[in-house]
Amino acid sequence: MRVTIALREKGIEFEWREEDLSNKSPLLLKMNPVKKQIPVLIHNGKPVCESLIIVQYIDEIWKDRTSLLPSDPYERGHARFWADYVDKKIYSPALQVCTTNGETKEAAKKELIQWFKTLEGELGDKAYFGGKTFGLVDIALIPFYCWFHSLETIGNLNMEAGFPKLVAWGKRCLEKESVSQTLPDQLKVYDFILGIRKNLGIE
Amino acid sequence: MRVTIALREKGIEFEWREEDLSNKSPLLLKMNPVKKQIPVLIHNGKPVCESLIIVQYIDEIWKDRTSLLPSDPYERGHARFWADYVDKKIYSPALQVCTTNGETKEAAKKELIQWFKTLEGELGDKAYFGGKTFGLVDIALIPFYCWFHSLETIGNLNMEAGFPKLVAWGKRCLEKESVSQTLPDQLKVYDFILGIRKNLGIE
Repeated sequence: MRVTIALREKGIEFEWREEDLSNKSPLLLKMNPVKKQIPVLIHNGKPVCESLIIVQYIDEIWKDRTSLLPSDPYERGHARFWADYVDKKIYSPALQVCTTNGETKEAAKKELIQWFKTLEGELGDKAYFGGKTFGLVDIALIPFYCWFHSLETIGNLNMEAGFPKLVAWGKRCLEKESVSQTLPDQLKVYDFILGIRKNLGIE
Repeated sequence: MRVTIALREKGIEFEWREEDLSNKSPLLLKMNPVKKQIPVLIHNGKPVCESLIIVQYIDEIWKDRTSLLPSDPYERGHARFWADYVDKKIYSPALQVCTTNGETKEAAKKELIQWFKTLEGELGDKAYFGGKTFGLVDIALIPFYCWFHSLETIGNLNMEAGFPKLVAWGKRCLEKESVSQTLPDQLKVYDFILGIRKNLGIE
């Protein structure tokens, strides 16, 4: 999603290839032999791997279009710090809240609340994490916005009351075509997670 | 070490402040309130956090001196990929090999051998990971070189036989003043690790 949003922000046409991760294609194994993971951006026949590295690559290659990273080195470092924070902190507890129960779920919920609070503080009264313009940190975090309904329903987290700025930010990002064309509906994600829970035998 | 090496490569003078991580200074807590971790580079009164982000910041701020990242966006993405790989893969199993015994140690050893093999393959016949010039990936990995003796002695890993190119690369890096002035001696690291093992009650 991050790569697709970045390409759409830049107005770059691309061909999307789905990967069956239980049966990885020879192309994926050839293009990312070290990690064998998605996403991979193939540009001029050469692969770039890891979503946040790809977003920076896209920004550097298509420099003349909408910037995704600030031009100031300090601001750029700041954006990289928060993108890295999102990358390392949010996914694992969000997944646990949605796919476990009991103590594991409660511990993950506590952790997630703490990360969201920190992000709410960092966002503050800015329109986007990058300030007035949508950028790297917004791209890093926005895919988690489609989990919000699941976190509310399964995790019993009141996102609107607890993190009103984050919720407003998510809605603001969705006004962008690059985001609305890319993100799946929150209810679809919810159904998908319910399916996972059922398969795992969790009520 | 990464930050110090990068600053020395650029020929930038700096003031080094030690942190007692069991009793963090008010300055650290003020400068990195989110992660409360070292390293932090304070430049013009403003903090930059996370070693690899700091190295990129240093490269961008002092652009006119020795480059640490390639100028080509594809090569830059490639360097970021491998620096990230080192960051995520090496530290944890190396620490486990040195500070555990039994099955945990053996599993970590297997993992570490796999990562080192991959790095040996990526290095190939190049002088440095960046090719002819010392750069981001070299800076990311070289601090682990001072663990090699400990990995050999405690981990029973034959680094020279198993990863001759990595060992030769480490020696080559040590010829640089920026590295030799920064890295502690392998035997000192070994003594330090033996101390940890003793404290943990491991033979």
